[in-house]
Amino acid sequence: MLHLRKLVYRTLEISAGKRRGMSLVFNLLLITIITLNAIAIVLHTVEEYNEQFARLFIDFELFSVIFFTIEYLLRLWVCVENDKYSHWFWGRLRYMFSTSAIIDFLAIFPFYFSLFATDLAIVRILRLFRIFRLFRISRYSHAFRLIQNVVAEKKEELILSTMLVVFMLIIVSSVMYYVEHPAQPDKFSSIPATMWWGVTAMTTVGYGDIHPITPLGKMLGGITAIVGIGLFALPTGILVSGFNEHIRDRKKPSRNVCPHCGREI
Amino acid sequence: MLHLRKLVYRTLEISAGKRRGMSLVFNLLLITIITLNAIAIVLHTVEEYNEQFARLFIDFELFSVIFFTIEYLLRLWVCVENDKYSHWFWGRLRYMFSTSAIIDFLAIFPFYFSLFATDLAIVRILRLFRIFRLFRISRYSHAFRLIQNVVAEKKEELILSTMLVVFMLIIVSSVMYYVEHPAQPDKFSSIPATMWWGVTAMTTVGYGDIHPITPLGKMLGGITAIVGIGLFALPTGILVSGFNEHIRDRKKPSRNVCPHCGREI
Amino acid sequence: MLHLRKLVYRTLEISAGKRRGMSLVFNLLLITIITLNAIAIVLHTVEEYNEQFARLFIDFELFSVIFFTIEYLLRLWVCVENDKYSHWFWGRLRYMFSTSAIIDFLAIFPFYFSLFATDLAIVRILRLFRIFRLFRISRYSHAFRLIQNVVAEKKEELILSTMLVVFMLIIVSSVMYYVEHPAQPDKFSSIPATMWWGVTAMTTVGYGDIHPITPLGKMLGGITAIVGIGLFALPTGILVSGFNEHIRDRKKPSRNVCPHCGREI
Amino acid sequence: MLHLRKLVYRTLEISAGKRRGMSLVFNLLLITIITLNAIAIVLHTVEEYNEQFARLFIDFELFSVIFFTIEYLLRLWVCVENDKYSHWFWGRLRYMFSTSAIIDFLAIFPFYFSLFATDLAIVRILRLFRIFRLFRISRYSHAFRLIQNVVAEKKEELILSTMLVVFMLIIVSSVMYYVEHPAQPDKFSSIPATMWWGVTAMTTVGYGDIHPITPLGKMLGGITAIVGIGLFALPTGILVSGFNEHIRDRKKPSRNVCPHCGREI
Repeated sequence: MLHLRKLVYRTLEISAGKRRGMSLVFNLLLITIITLNAIAIVLHTVEEYNEQFARLFIDFELFSVIFFTIEYLLRLWVCVENDKYSHWFWGRLRYMFSTSAIIDFLAIFPFYFSLFATDLAIVRILRLFRIFRLFRISRYSHAFRLIQNVVAEKKEELILSTMLVVFMLIIVSSVMYYVEHPAQPDKFSSIPATMWWGVTAMTTVGYGDIHPITPLGKMLGGITAIVGIGLFALPTGILVSGFNEHIRDRKKPSRNVCPHCGREI
Repeated sequence: MLHLRKLVYRTLEISAGKRRGMSLVFNLLLITIITLNAIAIVLHTVEEYNEQFARLFIDFELFSVIFFTIEYLLRLWVCVENDKYSHWFWGRLRYMFSTSAIIDFLAIFPFYFSLFATDLAIVRILRLFRIFRLFRISRYSHAFRLIQNVVAEKKEELILSTMLVVFMLIIVSSVMYYVEHPAQPDKFSSIPATMWWGVTAMTTVGYGDIHPITPLGKMLGGITAIVGIGLFALPTGILVSGFNEHIRDRKKPSRNVCPHCGREI
Repeated sequence: MLHLRKLVYRTLEISAGKRRGMSLVFNLLLITIITLNAIAIVLHTVEEYNEQFARLFIDFELFSVIFFTIEYLLRLWVCVENDKYSHWFWGRLRYMFSTSAIIDFLAIFPFYFSLFATDLAIVRILRLFRIFRLFRISRYSHAFRLIQNVVAEKKEELILSTMLVVFMLIIVSSVMYYVEHPAQPDKFSSIPATMWWGVTAMTTVGYGDIHPITPLGKMLGGITAIVGIGLFALPTGILVSGFNEHIRDRKKPSRNVCPHCGREI
Repeated sequence: MLHLRKLVYRTLEISAGKRRGMSLVFNLLLITIITLNAIAIVLHTVEEYNEQFARLFIDFELFSVIFFTIEYLLRLWVCVENDKYSHWFWGRLRYMFSTSAIIDFLAIFPFYFSLFATDLAIVRILRLFRIFRLFRISRYSHAFRLIQNVVAEKKEELILSTMLVVFMLIIVSSVMYYVEHPAQPDKFSSIPATMWWGVTAMTTVGYGDIHPITPLGKMLGGITAIVGIGLFALPTGILVSGFNEHIRDRKKPSRNVCPHCGREI
């Protein structure tokens, strides 16, 4: 039994040891099922596909939930093999509250909850939760881990620049509201409504559904767009430098230092 | 009395000494009130909230003004504790014209002025001035001080690149006016009106309310957008390098220099 | 005969040796014909030019195909002069499947195929293939080779960041679909339809044909635009550094190294 | 007479010597008149200002032309003081074809030409030429000289990346034309018409007057916007590095070099 648990653990986790082949096959199968789930979630919202392949969508959904449930229970059973969760009860409880286990749980929970929910609105919202299955793939994705690391490292600077953007957005939208409200009371109806203009102007999206028409408003709108470009240069610069640092680090695992000045060679 | 003045001074300013606890509590309270003011300013423009919580908005406005007025008077009283403003009269006068004191004054002045103003248009404009309360938070914000430093340091380059943008905007809008005016006399009605197109094209916002329709105008519009991207690369590059320098500086407080080449290690 | 083959080979390829003059003349002629082909492909879609110069377009097309066919056959004949394709049969076969030979083939093949095709839809699609002629110029273009090298070198990072963008696009569009579908069932009709909004929001194009109207949707739309700017900072940063490295390399062909720290001087 | 010529020369040019005061006054006057001209050119296109101040605009135009004409003739007279144009006839002729003298000439020539022109269309176009007066200010502007230097230095890379953009624009627009033409024959009427879409999509302006509606067209449009961001990263990166190099150079006029490795200290 304990031997079997070890075997299952090695299969579920990506291991580099003896049972590497089985682990690789299982994890490729898992990625395939998750990807198919993402495609199914996207395509089942297209009316014609939904009608044509209704049976297929339901069957695949059922199969996915059963597969993910068995996998979740197996992971819970074998997690004690990991030194971090070695206690038979407290270890398993702590594992259940780890980020990856929560994501795994959120991928299956909505299905079981919707069986008992009678309110259609709740069922609709629960469907949205199925997108969490896509997050499961992030465990395998270098990209996702990279972005996590960069964001974690540059957290302080990013919060700082986000605060600047929000600060700027409030100021610009408040001024614009007082300038444009008399001319377009239906569009610039309140400061929160004007903030929608503010965010599309500062990010230079500019859908065109709301824009100033008075000369003063246009002047302010022009300055906002120019300032917005400068303001977004900040997080862009932070992220670019963060990503570059990481990419450089990954490429040069070992480093030498000049004996004279201590700089890297 | 002098002892009390010292105590109040230490509470108002963010101090690192003995009375640190009281100073922290007061400043957190101040930040909370300022943030609530920002939320109130934004939300009171939403019709339904304004009707529902009319009483609350007025009461909170009154409370804020009284709080800020007392705080302003206290600051004026204790500012002489600061060596920069030590003279009992001239010191206080000079303090009144410091940037932070002016912002504090602009946060309360509109309320008192509006009590005597009978013209509704002026009262409306004065309401706009309440946003200055939000600027008060900038005293605590690293972000705001950072942007101030970067802008101050790179002032010359930013003026230079702003001049370039304005120069380019006038040239492009003038040429576009002569090209598009005959085809769209109502939209490209004058060079100032065309400059609204120019600024949305160069910043790539592109609301879609005004755009060239003649082949020559479209060609010019395409070139403008391409040149605009290049032109805005300048202030973006300046600000990115400015922010990066500051962030780097803040992280490495002390520096050593290589004895061979004098470069930083 | 063998002497002639050598002569033709040296004329077709850009050689630096004796017959440089003839080779230069031929290659300039080839670039001119390709450029004229590009102009013809673009202009023949303009109704009035197509009617006015119908004869000219057909004649030039015929001339181009004959010229490219003769050139293709000549290249096939002389390719054995190249050491890589020296075998009289297998060398020529391998040459036919080289990238440049395939591009040459695709530039003439549609014409011959359309002579036998009776289905008009296929003939239309084949016309599109004529744009491949433009790719032929890439052989002479430093720009094209530069972009190929940069993309090849930074392949891993670019795939990684493209995955991130796609991942983000699916998540954002799925959430937006559930938020906006009830309010605008005709525009946000399905997740794939919402992805068109997602891509225009994240790239800040913002045509304005589809955008959120509910408060929650607008908030999500604003966050998407802000995140999109950060997300696109990644490939931009990768490409900028890639291009800069190449441009720098091309300018400094030889390098010296400091004997003390081994850094480039 | 010769003494007077020297005096006039020193006044017209920005000199650092004895007559510095007079030169400064004259050049400030010149900048003021040029700036007023720019404002007049912009404002006279606003219908209501043009009617109200018609007399003023005409008088100022007359004054400006007389002032610039006298200045042009004086410059022509005194240019022989400059060693470069010392010959009394050939020197003056060569001066007339220098960039700055041509700009000066283009600033006054349209007025004299329009006196004899009877065709109104030509007079309209000549009015456009008055914007050249604004270019005269570039002589004083560091910004203008900076951009000239950067563009001159990075010429090769900029041509290369512009070629890439044009190349990409033709390919993308050709494919989009064949994809969208059947669905929107009036908007995507020809490849040149589709190139207007292409340029607004690649620069992310997105006016919304023209955009794909078919699923395949939308997919292609999304890819175009993503590729466009990458493509414009190239000239942006080139210009940013070019400007940064210049700004850095201007700040460090003198440099020392480490005796060990020859790097700048």
